[in-house]
Amino acid sequence: MAQVSPSVHKALKHQRIETPSWGYGNSGTRFKTFAAPGAARNVWEKLEDAALIHRLSGIAPSVALHIPWDWVEDWEQLNAYAQEQGIQIGAINPNLFQDEEYRLGSIAHPDPKVRSKAIRHILECIEIMQVTGSRDLSLWFADGTNYAGQDDLRSRKQRVREGLEQVYAALPEGKRMLLEYKFFEPAFYFTDVFDWGAALLYCQALGEKAQVLVDLGHHAQATNIEAIVAFLLDEGKLGGFHFNARRYADDDLIVGSTHPFELFCIYTELVAAEHSSDPRAAHTARNVAYMIDQSHNIEPKLEAMLQSVLNCQEAYAKALLVDYPALRQAQQHGDVLEAHRILLEAFKTDVRPLLAEVREEMGVPPDPIRALRQGEYLSQRIQRRGTPSGASGYPT
Amino acid sequence: MAQVSPSVHKALKHQRIETPSWGYGNSGTRFKTFAAPGAARNVWEKLEDAALIHRLSGIAPSVALHIPWDWVEDWEQLNAYAQEQGIQIGAINPNLFQDEEYRLGSIAHPDPKVRSKAIRHILECIEIMQVTGSRDLSLWFADGTNYAGQDDLRSRKQRVREGLEQVYAALPEGKRMLLEYKFFEPAFYFTDVFDWGAALLYCQALGEKAQVLVDLGHHAQATNIEAIVAFLLDEGKLGGFHFNARRYADDDLIVGSTHPFELFCIYTELVAAEHSSDPRAAHTARNVAYMIDQSHNIEPKLEAMLQSVLNCQEAYAKALLVDYPALRQAQQHGDVLEAHRILLEAFKTDVRPLLAEVREEMGVPPDPIRALRQGEYLSQRIQRRGTPSGASGYPT
Amino acid sequence: MAQVSPSVHKALKHQRIETPSWGYGNSGTRFKTFAAPGAARNVWEKLEDAALIHRLSGIAPSVALHIPWDWVEDWEQLNAYAQEQGIQIGAINPNLFQDEEYRLGSIAHPDPKVRSKAIRHILECIEIMQVTGSRDLSLWFADGTNYAGQDDLRSRKQRVREGLEQVYAALPEGKRMLLEYKFFEPAFYFTDVFDWGAALLYCQALGEKAQVLVDLGHHAQATNIEAIVAFLLDEGKLGGFHFNARRYADDDLIVGSTHPFELFCIYTELVAAEHSSDPRAAHTARNVAYMIDQSHNIEPKLEAMLQSVLNCQEAYAKALLVDYPALRQAQQHGDVLEAHRILLEAFKTDVRPLLAEVREEMGVPPDPIRALRQGEYLSQRIQRRGTPSGASGYPT
Amino acid sequence: MAQVSPSVHKALKHQRIETPSWGYGNSGTRFKTFAAPGAARNVWEKLEDAALIHRLSGIAPSVALHIPWDWVEDWEQLNAYAQEQGIQIGAINPNLFQDEEYRLGSIAHPDPKVRSKAIRHILECIEIMQVTGSRDLSLWFADGTNYAGQDDLRSRKQRVREGLEQVYAALPEGKRMLLEYKFFEPAFYFTDVFDWGAALLYCQALGEKAQVLVDLGHHAQATNIEAIVAFLLDEGKLGGFHFNARRYADDDLIVGSTHPFELFCIYTELVAAEHSSDPRAAHTARNVAYMIDQSHNIEPKLEAMLQSVLNCQEAYAKALLVDYPALRQAQQHGDVLEAHRILLEAFKTDVRPLLAEVREEMGVPPDPIRALRQGEYLSQRIQRRGTPSGASGYPT
Repeated sequence: MAQVSPSVHKALKHQRIETPSWGYGNSGTRFKTFAAPGAARNVWEKLEDAALIHRLSGIAPSVALHIPWDWVEDWEQLNAYAQEQGIQIGAINPNLFQDEEYRLGSIAHPDPKVRSKAIRHILECIEIMQVTGSRDLSLWFADGTNYAGQDDLRSRKQRVREGLEQVYAALPEGKRMLLEYKFFEPAFYFTDVFDWGAALLYCQALGEKAQVLVDLGHHAQATNIEAIVAFLLDEGKLGGFHFNARRYADDDLIVGSTHPFELFCIYTELVAAEHSSDPRAAHTARNVAYMIDQSHNIEPKLEAMLQSVLNCQEAYAKALLVDYPALRQAQQHGDVLEAHRILLEAFKTDVRPLLAEVREEMGVPPDPIRALRQGEYLSQRIQRRGTPSGASGYPT
Repeated sequence: MAQVSPSVHKALKHQRIETPSWGYGNSGTRFKTFAAPGAARNVWEKLEDAALIHRLSGIAPSVALHIPWDWVEDWEQLNAYAQEQGIQIGAINPNLFQDEEYRLGSIAHPDPKVRSKAIRHILECIEIMQVTGSRDLSLWFADGTNYAGQDDLRSRKQRVREGLEQVYAALPEGKRMLLEYKFFEPAFYFTDVFDWGAALLYCQALGEKAQVLVDLGHHAQATNIEAIVAFLLDEGKLGGFHFNARRYADDDLIVGSTHPFELFCIYTELVAAEHSSDPRAAHTARNVAYMIDQSHNIEPKLEAMLQSVLNCQEAYAKALLVDYPALRQAQQHGDVLEAHRILLEAFKTDVRPLLAEVREEMGVPPDPIRALRQGEYLSQRIQRRGTPSGASGYPT
Repeated sequence: MAQVSPSVHKALKHQRIETPSWGYGNSGTRFKTFAAPGAARNVWEKLEDAALIHRLSGIAPSVALHIPWDWVEDWEQLNAYAQEQGIQIGAINPNLFQDEEYRLGSIAHPDPKVRSKAIRHILECIEIMQVTGSRDLSLWFADGTNYAGQDDLRSRKQRVREGLEQVYAALPEGKRMLLEYKFFEPAFYFTDVFDWGAALLYCQALGEKAQVLVDLGHHAQATNIEAIVAFLLDEGKLGGFHFNARRYADDDLIVGSTHPFELFCIYTELVAAEHSSDPRAAHTARNVAYMIDQSHNIEPKLEAMLQSVLNCQEAYAKALLVDYPALRQAQQHGDVLEAHRILLEAFKTDVRPLLAEVREEMGVPPDPIRALRQGEYLSQRIQRRGTPSGASGYPT
Repeated sequence: MAQVSPSVHKALKHQRIETPSWGYGNSGTRFKTFAAPGAARNVWEKLEDAALIHRLSGIAPSVALHIPWDWVEDWEQLNAYAQEQGIQIGAINPNLFQDEEYRLGSIAHPDPKVRSKAIRHILECIEIMQVTGSRDLSLWFADGTNYAGQDDLRSRKQRVREGLEQVYAALPEGKRMLLEYKFFEPAFYFTDVFDWGAALLYCQALGEKAQVLVDLGHHAQATNIEAIVAFLLDEGKLGGFHFNARRYADDDLIVGSTHPFELFCIYTELVAAEHSSDPRAAHTARNVAYMIDQSHNIEPKLEAMLQSVLNCQEAYAKALLVDYPALRQAQQHGDVLEAHRILLEAFKTDVRPLLAEVREEMGVPPDPIRALRQGEYLSQRIQRRGTPSGASGYPT
């Protein structure tokens, strides 16, 4: 590898990946939730695990919460506990799909009473954000329909918009609303926020504090995600990511595990925008919330989460190594294959030595996976926590 | 509608659709299982519900069981109860995915102890088949891997084959093994029986009693399912169907609800084969097991199942109305659009009057859905059974 | 069929489907263009064919042109010829992909000289619109890239926007610009106007006269097109359709031939919007341009086009028969399956008798396909025009 | 990179990738064939270009021909010319889609006269193989239908089988028939050899000399190609590859350019099988024909082909570096993520230094792309050959 610029080291040290509290508890497919020995049983243990991932990686200093899965009586106390552990509380994710009332939707439900309930829950989450100091309200709606004719699509669109307007009005200064879209599941005919175009329409109607959240697993097959990222950056509307990987549907696998080149391409759009002369794209890129959203079914939770964080680090490192000026020049000359190769040169580079170096400078283990596997972390957790049965996260 | 031949009436009266016991209990997505008021709580109630669907439709005289969800101490007693209700026990479906040991697979698991356990369970199911008089052992394996490299693909193939050989050897005369394939889920990188080609390879290696089961929701997008049906019929290897509908993944919706023309095209292959001069195709078609396999998340269970049965009836009726001799002639003349239109003529026909007629001849309500909705069936069940919480079917 | 309201007859008589000039010439896949005996060789013959389709169907009174394929010296003369034939000239479609300069794009090309050329061509088309009286400028850009890194996505977005702004500025009062999106092809990595979200962004930035054009074959697998239609109607941004059918990619088959239920669902959104109390949706729906865009490779051109027009008629007729008030009521009550069935009732209705009636009232043959096949239309054309070799439309 | 075993060097020197004659001529999409300056105009020039790619890469010593595109009067002369250039003639590809008679198919056509014509052409190709010393007859059929009902699927299956039997009977000892499957295009409803299962059925029925050919662009979205490769290897039925890359349909891009990790995973199956203790898998893997099949639309032909060959080399090198014993151990222990990482370690390795070394040992340029771009190769060709118009390959 050619000499790496100090700015690359610096950028790598400033990278931040937020891990999700629900990734530390038990989870599964509709067929089975396998018991994960030592998995976190409550929000305190989830914070403990998130803190471990941060100690091992150095770049995961915050944890996203899911309400009411992570609901506590005393948020100040939770905040203090997080700080004690060396991490912060990140995005707040309301749950709008686990109550019986939500069978036909939450903010798009035909019944205004259900819509009100949903909005009240989101407003409650905004209050939690005030105490936890969270910047981002992360909204995913499972709303949709399963059969043609089940509900009126334009009416639903209007209900979603009205609901979001109420939420937006309650959003304090300095807070953001990130609106996530999803191609399908759990709705199988129509999903209310079905793609980036739908999410963007809502965010445009709301205002500056509303931005789109891109979950890598929420697209139709073959969708060019980096194009969506580029367009949202250009519009100043990219708010954040839910990172994970998929081959088929919303598989929620370890990010980067199925298509590492795609993850790299996405990161190159972000790096390029960060350094762009376009102030809106640059500002937007610098404020992107990088969050992991995965559901580990058969893998050890801690190792899977750590691996995910490291895969983001690797993709970012490669994206930082792209020779952008040379790339632009080749592009402007219409030199198709030379431009393509310039991108590939960075991708082909083995960044493991660079990352080991950066980690040493950061005071974290040069091989964090090895450190995790060789440490007593998991065995101690199993001893203390035992083995859960059923999916955690879901309050009992 | 032109005069309908008496053979169509006759064929419609002989149509048989098997409903699944698990379709009467509660079920859900990975996000939520909504409580279905009055849903069956055990196998006895499931049989009661299946019997109701048969009484209302006249064409659903058997019910498939899932073991151990439907396990009882005394199978003779269950058999007797089924007969009392006017139905029979149909295919037996072993469960090879709900035990902790199956985290990395069942008959393809790297550990021979787990493979043995899986095979023992299937052999136990064969014994149940002997008592219930079931003809078909219906095998679906959730086996697969989530990450490239997780396991060796050829080794897994050999393990599956060895396991199936042991099962096949235990299959008594007159029984069949139906092997279901699935594109993905719950495995997200590789599924051991991933398509009809893989299933066919195993069935070829086993022998005549092994046939392929086609689940309409288990294909890649855009797959031409009727072509697979035609090929399997021609090879004498089509054993049965799991009917349902999907738009995205394995959505498990009401059969025919998303793409009625596709369901019709599938039925035309079956009707054509039944009357074919090719003895193998004809014999195969006449012995196809027509089974529903759905998972109703937001719809009333009984109504959804009845609707599914009726949708199969409608597709079959239309397929019976195709003018096959005229179709063959247009095909042989290469008259592309005339041949296409001959098929469409049947599809466009409104068969509701014909079906009302046939139902009256069969002594069932001419509008079974109306009969269900106007009857006390559901309210009585709710009163007796209450509202379940969580997914049923899964033994607790 | 229950008594049909006179308003249905009236609506059916006012239905309008525009056929494309290029559908009457020869066309093919990248593998082969088969010679279609009697296919139109120039724009005059294309108009003659379009007029025949209108005489047989009564609902295809206009024809879309493709420039320069249909370029003539004297547009007044062409206009007069069209009127003579009983039809009008409809949308004008610039060609921005057949010149050598467009290898790397047209309005998104890295080279400003190529972009200027593209814009000049579109401006020329606007001048033609003035003479032909066309309301709609129909824009499809083949622009895109084949390899990651080949060009900068945000730069391309800005170039497209700048180009469209120049075009928009030249659009006279009363004219519209319809912007078509496409998921892929001929670009295989990134397409500049890649989905409805991208197209909508451009149209929003331009103003009221810019609207989105939906081509049924230009979506990712499983995309819910009626949802896009509903959203665009609600935004006042649905300008028109390019109707065709597909199973795989942009197959350009006869509309309604692969998935008739989907075509029906799309039409129900349009009918519902037309009669909506929302003035924007209603106004938008009433001004939608319904156009066919197909490429018949193996079928007789005239029959394929006529069939396409009739399939749209059938879908529209069924959509008119939906009991919308009952549908809304079931939807508001959350009666999932009843609402679904209300939609299906209309779909299941055999509208062929109704359409025969309407056709007689309109003075066109009750069975237009039969009229075409029994007439001398094709044989006379073959005699006069012979059999072309190679793809027509492409100027020689 | 850890010390690389000499066996890796050796294996890399023995790698062989066959390039296709049609990749050196002009080609395009259905929308446009851009003129490629200096593109080969006839088979002699194509051989000249193939030889150049071999001189630059050292691993492309043969060229596949397409008949009749590459038809010559004197095959001995062509053979001699190839040898003179330092290459050999490889697989022979009959063309069964470019004649007017093939509108409705070739060996599956309803008309026996067309089927006979198709078979005669294939038999003619077998004769050519005798003279050129080709081992492989590479069969791709564009056969299929565009509309439901257009033809009878089982009849077509029987026609294909009968046709292949005639061809197989004429295949001399030591020759192979490779049967390629394709998901769709140019047929848009049904393709006669639509997937590996269909191809395998035909090959099984024929015998040992018939094997399946896997084209990387011919699958449904998300298909796990390495699983198909593994299954075919295990069955002794993998005959060869048509390498290329795609994101959407059969995009025919530079192999490895869209999803390098997938190409690597495919190669690991091949490397593992080559060294397998299973004699059938090992024998099969060692006889796989590695062929490129691409269609370069906007890239310089020579550079695109060279890049493709080098991408195969890189993927193979990485697959050779996998620590297979460690991988098997982790797999057997069910250590999901460790096994996955062992695979990834090889993928992450930067093999460019290794390949530069190997190239020097082989006497070819260490950076072949640079050598091509800095040489006079292209400019000389442009001078000699000019710029073609229209697609070449297609005889005029």
